[in-house]
Amino acid sequence: MKKIKNVALSGGTHGNEFIGAYLIKKWKQNPELIQRPSFFTLPLLSNPKAHREVRRYIDRDLNRSFIKKELNNPDLPAYEADRAKTLNQILGPKGDPKFDFILDLHSTTANMGQSIILADHDPFNLQLAAHLKSIRSAVNVYRWVEPDRETSFLNSIAPFGFAIEVGPIPQGLLLAELFVQTEQLVYDTLDFLEQYNQGKTSPSKPLTVYQHQKTIDYPRNEHGEMGAMIHPERQGTDYQKLSKGDPLFVGFDGKTIPYAEEKDVWPVFINAAAYYEKGIAMCFTEKTQENPQS
Amino acid sequence: MKKIKNVALSGGTHGNEFIGAYLIKKWKQNPELIQRPSFFTLPLLSNPKAHREVRRYIDRDLNRSFIKKELNNPDLPAYEADRAKTLNQILGPKGDPKFDFILDLHSTTANMGQSIILADHDPFNLQLAAHLKSIRSAVNVYRWVEPDRETSFLNSIAPFGFAIEVGPIPQGLLLAELFVQTEQLVYDTLDFLEQYNQGKTSPSKPLTVYQHQKTIDYPRNEHGEMGAMIHPERQGTDYQKLSKGDPLFVGFDGKTIPYAEEKDVWPVFINAAAYYEKGIAMCFTEKTQENPQS
Repeated sequence: MKKIKNVALSGGTHGNEFIGAYLIKKWKQNPELIQRPSFFTLPLLSNPKAHREVRRYIDRDLNRSFIKKELNNPDLPAYEADRAKTLNQILGPKGDPKFDFILDLHSTTANMGQSIILADHDPFNLQLAAHLKSIRSAVNVYRWVEPDRETSFLNSIAPFGFAIEVGPIPQGLLLAELFVQTEQLVYDTLDFLEQYNQGKTSPSKPLTVYQHQKTIDYPRNEHGEMGAMIHPERQGTDYQKLSKGDPLFVGFDGKTIPYAEEKDVWPVFINAAAYYEKGIAMCFTEKTQENPQS
Repeated sequence: MKKIKNVALSGGTHGNEFIGAYLIKKWKQNPELIQRPSFFTLPLLSNPKAHREVRRYIDRDLNRSFIKKELNNPDLPAYEADRAKTLNQILGPKGDPKFDFILDLHSTTANMGQSIILADHDPFNLQLAAHLKSIRSAVNVYRWVEPDRETSFLNSIAPFGFAIEVGPIPQGLLLAELFVQTEQLVYDTLDFLEQYNQGKTSPSKPLTVYQHQKTIDYPRNEHGEMGAMIHPERQGTDYQKLSKGDPLFVGFDGKTIPYAEEKDVWPVFINAAAYYEKGIAMCFTEKTQENPQS
């Protein structure tokens, strides 16, 4: 593999996720914090209009807008369709990009802690994830790959990189502790890239990777409206095992709705505010072990 | 004082505050839960358009739109200006209302627990607040009255009532525990009104009331942008004493900014997402004792 030459740090891809947006603002004012000897780092506020309006997006989810076919379609009316083209022009084009590595910073109301969201099976990305996990035990690694579907995330423009997802944090505000944790995770990532370029990385130990299985929706009534809430015993239990019979939802009448499938799963993105409109109450994952190659 | 005849429960006054909105939906489907023998109760989704769009408001804050002069001005362009007139027509008119009592349900990202927000010095409202505090020790009572300024809250249409503010909860989602707590607080309120109508209320003990003093903004840079965050030691400490020298904010560079005034204050609405745009980092209050008359 060649050396990493150009790295992009993107934040505010969702305009109401403030941790990433304010880190980008910090780095624009203090660029020395993210530069390393062997590569160039660009800080980028991905969706400035949505950030100004403190909304996830204006017309559509920017972080689902990086499908090649759509990037090549000039007729799409959404603001984010054009914003995706702008970012693809700066960082890409997807498939033959100017930037080797994109780290996209996200936050969520779910108790995701410090999560790495892999969008592929790339061995370099896995090695980096394993390194971050090895030096920061709180890190969890979640691979959100859906078979036969092109990844539409911003970071899919470049071959290397992933999203960082931190939480729990409400939309539209800052929490100082999470801000500092995220900042440090980014510096650890940049330091690893520098070590890699200098040929100094060493093999990583096997690590736990939570593999995306499927999403599940909230129970709905006959009008399609929410019919239940996340059960209090499930709230905040991201990455913890869910077995048949465990409380899953609770109706507005107080009745518990248990998990009814036979297979154990490890839910993530439990009660993410941004996913209500997507019909996602949580994502089910399978817990696996992977062995990164150095 | 006459008997209470008509009670309104309003929720979703801010469209992204789901606890109130979903309680209203529950009560529209199960009206028997909120009816009492001696009065009529109306459940009302205050801002249906903002709720559908999961935004605090469409054009302006509905819960700052109940100034008499504005209610009588047909030329205002905001959606919420018309929505306020609709609500004033149903519940009011302010000054001579059809409804005696309005309970407006709110939620916040701040750690407000179960708060009663008094907007006046009315002795009946204080007596009710004291009753709720006496049966639910977690309740806190905050009086947000600003001298020489007409109260613009929705509940100011009626002579009696107040807002209930629960938290912490992110915008745009439900938390089952807080949903149940809020629901119970409403039933306790309705039960008190029924007891009052039957002449069965008894004197309440003195209670702590947190009196609004002023709001303070986040430190800002020369462009008016946020220059610091709530200090981690302050986050979530609503209703706790703040003294000179205590950590208040922390800069993006990690530097602590302490509270510098001589006077002890008890902050509330600390780091409320909805107040960023209002230039409010928190509200300072003074802790007082009041003696309600029965």
